[in-house]
Amino acid sequence: MTGPEIDRLIQLLARLPGLGPRSARRVALHLLKRREVLLQPLAAAMTDAAEKVQPCSQCGNLDTIDPCAICADPRRDPSIICVVEEVADLWALERARIFAGRYHVLGGTLSALDGVGPEDLNIGPLLGRARQAAVREVVIATNATTDGQTTAHYLTDRLADCDVSVTRLAYGVPVGGELDYLDDGTLAAALKARRAF
Amino acid sequence: MTGPEIDRLIQLLARLPGLGPRSARRVALHLLKRREVLLQPLAAAMTDAAEKVQPCSQCGNLDTIDPCAICADPRRDPSIICVVEEVADLWALERARIFAGRYHVLGGTLSALDGVGPEDLNIGPLLGRARQAAVREVVIATNATTDGQTTAHYLTDRLADCDVSVTRLAYGVPVGGELDYLDDGTLAAALKARRAF
Repeated sequence: MTGPEIDRLIQLLARLPGLGPRSARRVALHLLKRREVLLQPLAAAMTDAAEKVQPCSQCGNLDTIDPCAICADPRRDPSIICVVEEVADLWALERARIFAGRYHVLGGTLSALDGVGPEDLNIGPLLGRARQAAVREVVIATNATTDGQTTAHYLTDRLADCDVSVTRLAYGVPVGGELDYLDDGTLAAALKARRAF
Repeated sequence: MTGPEIDRLIQLLARLPGLGPRSARRVALHLLKRREVLLQPLAAAMTDAAEKVQPCSQCGNLDTIDPCAICADPRRDPSIICVVEEVADLWALERARIFAGRYHVLGGTLSALDGVGPEDLNIGPLLGRARQAAVREVVIATNATTDGQTTAHYLTDRLADCDVSVTRLAYGVPVGGELDYLDDGTLAAALKARRAF
């Protein structure tokens, strides 16, 4: 019904997260109707990103320079490393502007179900970094999911013989959260970790 | 937080229909993690489409050849033209494999609210085509929305002095539809257009 060029564009768009065949067709038409203002700039931006963006050899963040802008920034505290699962988590922390140390991106979590073992994650380099004299603390900021927690425990074990304090994010009621809508696990964690007023 | 290349990619992705800033970030990371298998092929497919795909000068369909594959296909009946709002509607009819005539894409609907008048739509060429001796019927397949219906009525008036029969799609209960879930307008149309068993 359509030419092979359009079909191929739709097929590739349908492989993006959150898009199916129907929304891929919609996106393809949207792009083809906006050739100059959207389709060509987006194609150029993708080509540009594909050529220039690469993982940072130190922390695993994605950037056009290596080491990445965060690892290369002398204003950032080199004594504290925040371990995250994915670059998306690093971006989330950076958007919040709450952390001034360095990061380490694991590239996933341990998962028996998906066959992801320690050798599949960016763990060896983390241990190397944790042994550097300048590093005093490793904050494990994996997700509060089963796999994230398993990975956090594994990392804690592996980091035990490095001379660093290993910490994790606090669990509790999210700011703005209503107790009535929270799950039992969160409530239990919040009660257990209660603080003096 | 990220390089200008990644920021620009995210900004452009966020302008696609159905994507917001959050899902654009997700898509960008998905692409950057799959450089060879997805990012580069998609950039190439977009560049390719931007260069080759164009509207058909006869019917307004999008294709890499002009006239488009449908207009150029000698097996398709030239005596019947199906008028649709957008290329997406043409694709929907083609997917259903139910129509063997030619199409005419209006490029939208009349809309007083959005300031779309007859001169903004592909109407003049439609009248030219309808006056050709070979054309005997024009099926108006605009959407069953207020704007689609307004456009259909306007087209019927304009086509009155062409020597063609002007028809429209039937209204009624959609196949598989349950009466309990249908709106009053559809039920009224279905009752009014009832047929002998």
